[in-house]
Amino acid sequence: MENPISAAEERQPSHLLNVPSVSQSPRNDGEQGTNGKAMGFVLVHAGAGYHSESKAKEYKHVCKRACQRAVEKLKAGAMAVEAVTAALVELEDSPFTNAGMGSNLNLSGEIECDAGIMDGKSLHFGAVGALSGIKNPVLVANRLLQEAQKGKLSAGRIPPCFLVGKGAYHWAVHHGIPPCPSDKMATKFSLSAYKRNKRKMELAEKVESEYKQTKKRRQSSENGGLMDPPPQQDNDSGCLDTVGAIVVDREGNVAAAVSSGGLAMKHPGRVGQAAHYGCGCWAENAWNPALNPYSTAVSTSGCGEHLIRTVLARECSTAVQSEDAHQALLETMQNKFISSPFLASEDCVLGGVIVLRCCRCVESQPAQDIQALLVEFLWSHTTESMCVGYMSAQDGKAKTHISRLPPGAVAGQSLAIEGGVCRLGSLVG
Amino acid sequence: MENPISAAEERQPSHLLNVPSVSQSPRNDGEQGTNGKAMGFVLVHAGAGYHSESKAKEYKHVCKRACQRAVEKLKAGAMAVEAVTAALVELEDSPFTNAGMGSNLNLSGEIECDAGIMDGKSLHFGAVGALSGIKNPVLVANRLLQEAQKGKLSAGRIPPCFLVGKGAYHWAVHHGIPPCPSDKMATKFSLSAYKRNKRKMELAEKVESEYKQTKKRRQSSENGGLMDPPPQQDNDSGCLDTVGAIVVDREGNVAAAVSSGGLAMKHPGRVGQAAHYGCGCWAENAWNPALNPYSTAVSTSGCGEHLIRTVLARECSTAVQSEDAHQALLETMQNKFISSPFLASEDCVLGGVIVLRCCRCVESQPAQDIQALLVEFLWSHTTESMCVGYMSAQDGKAKTHISRLPPGAVAGQSLAIEGGVCRLGSLVG
Repeated sequence: MENPISAAEERQPSHLLNVPSVSQSPRNDGEQGTNGKAMGFVLVHAGAGYHSESKAKEYKHVCKRACQRAVEKLKAGAMAVEAVTAALVELEDSPFTNAGMGSNLNLSGEIECDAGIMDGKSLHFGAVGALSGIKNPVLVANRLLQEAQKGKLSAGRIPPCFLVGKGAYHWAVHHGIPPCPSDKMATKFSLSAYKRNKRKMELAEKVESEYKQTKKRRQSSENGGLMDPPPQQDNDSGCLDTVGAIVVDREGNVAAAVSSGGLAMKHPGRVGQAAHYGCGCWAENAWNPALNPYSTAVSTSGCGEHLIRTVLARECSTAVQSEDAHQALLETMQNKFISSPFLASEDCVLGGVIVLRCCRCVESQPAQDIQALLVEFLWSHTTESMCVGYMSAQDGKAKTHISRLPPGAVAGQSLAIEGGVCRLGSLVG
Repeated sequence: MENPISAAEERQPSHLLNVPSVSQSPRNDGEQGTNGKAMGFVLVHAGAGYHSESKAKEYKHVCKRACQRAVEKLKAGAMAVEAVTAALVELEDSPFTNAGMGSNLNLSGEIECDAGIMDGKSLHFGAVGALSGIKNPVLVANRLLQEAQKGKLSAGRIPPCFLVGKGAYHWAVHHGIPPCPSDKMATKFSLSAYKRNKRKMELAEKVESEYKQTKKRRQSSENGGLMDPPPQQDNDSGCLDTVGAIVVDREGNVAAAVSSGGLAMKHPGRVGQAAHYGCGCWAENAWNPALNPYSTAVSTSGCGEHLIRTVLARECSTAVQSEDAHQALLETMQNKFISSPFLASEDCVLGGVIVLRCCRCVESQPAQDIQALLVEFLWSHTTESMCVGYMSAQDGKAKTHISRLPPGAVAGQSLAIEGGVCRLGSLVG
């Protein structure tokens, strides 16, 4: 695969950098097999947030393993939705990511997970929110999707696509997904982060309360004359490590999934973008070439409330239907995320996306026609960094990368965008 | 107000009826006040489903009261979001609607409610899902919206916009919303419906299980030769009575809200469209006249899974930005709901929407300029019927109407669309 290209963008919609599109890139070394056997491609992320150099190795390693799990499935003939689930299970099982095992603890010191999955072929969606006691929330989301595809329940009842809390837990266990005691899902790392965050919060509340009292006294004695408000600590962007994956299989079907432990110290019951239709993930096969020439898949990461209120996964999917996917994604991240009127009151808009789009192309060669799948893949983030991995079913191993904002760029107001292209070939007829 | 106009539409995208648009309608009798005092308009629905003639009076009556509550708030100078909340509380409190008091019971015989609210001015959104033990779920959704507008929590934490289950309940009680024992929210009607549905379900499961056994025996003895599958009972469309309201206030701000007890016999933890961003309600002030000339508000009702997978509220809002709102809504209901590729596997697509759009216009008159607010309002449904009510702040009382599919039209495959227009005047300067 080619070297990723990159660009950084300040929060000025009228001043878009003109970066070359990946679709114009001349090089691609993903094309290998014309043997018609292994086909498919996976792109994963271990979150948009802050990835310290010291932990970079771990993050890259889990992305690599997740890509391998997906490719194993693809090689065995699995469809995209099964491969994307396999990648997610690997990402959830890592104690370093904020999903499944090792998820952030909420205000009450409990783990409550969200996950969502979408199948571009059937356009079905499954999601769980605020789910405790299940090691791999993506398995429940996937099972909801599978069950919904079977049609109506007894007495014509419509099967659910989204379950939360205790109800989701009981449904999962009833459908054979093993329970896992919550205390086994917490790690040394997540427990110490919880204690640290709790101390920070108590300190911040003490300072804020003292400020309010001082302000009150001043107001009553001086009839005005405010002090500066206490400095607010930024949300610890190290804790935004939602994970996700997008896959295209040998038949050109796409699928996307996302899983998250949610924001650190969130209120119990809070559900983020991972469980929200159109916000955490999106996958849509090209069902009408006139309207929709490309199959697209998207998975997001970052601050759930920002990703929900901008319906970012679906927006990105719609955007990359245009000719220049790279430019379209750049403009979407700039105009519909950082500068979105829906987030006008936010000074810091944190998130990241991975996107792929693919289309079929047939090339005539002397001996035979080659049917190829052209896959363009991109990632973009407004957070300090984002860890990604990608692999085609013909590759021997995954490539991983920690994308970072350029020096001096302000997280939440700037963005980075990178990507590549991969051509997967197979015989026709 | 003028008499509603109506049209029915079969499930044939290429055969759209050319019905006159309400925006071309010459009559409007909503214009009364040019006194610059009372301004605003409310449209409510008591659900898209089936409203029997025998209960029509009750449904109309609750719609009337809900309109009156909203108008009382508008007259007192409240903003749209406060007025829409007041309408919802009235709708939830009715034992006849499937929201709040008298909600459908789930499989376990419990009440779990969803509600969502959106403020077109701030573009903030609040929602609760699978919430038990609170009489008015919309009050919790509204409080989430209000709290989020205040900015970050201590230590820079981002306030939640969506809470579910026990966590939502505790948040509500902590914020002063009184709890209500679940058994007080069940009514004689909802309990008897639960018992009836449970018997239906058990019977259906028995029949299906017997069919499967017969099929198995036949397959093993005859190697094929299937019987017809057992007839599935349609989802009881009488139980889809989600409620909602949309409001425009004297300043031209819009707001939308929706509340639901969910499908009868749903799995515990199932969350429907009412809590889903873009699916249950949408409100968006005209923030950029070049892109967005109209302020729009939408509230939906019907089968949650269908409304989620088509993001129907947001789609309708986007659609009615075009010149002819009536035609745009007709096409959206036809092409993006009934014939949506996202619901290709569904033989029966059940839902309804109420929509308003408004824009300012200034008219020169001899003595002074009149600044008026032109409000176009519409409802459309694919269910047997939909009960609506509407009222401007200048009206003495609300008008109510039960819209029905025309005779012979098939619910889930056909639609009805009706609406009106209302001009609200006030002095300029």
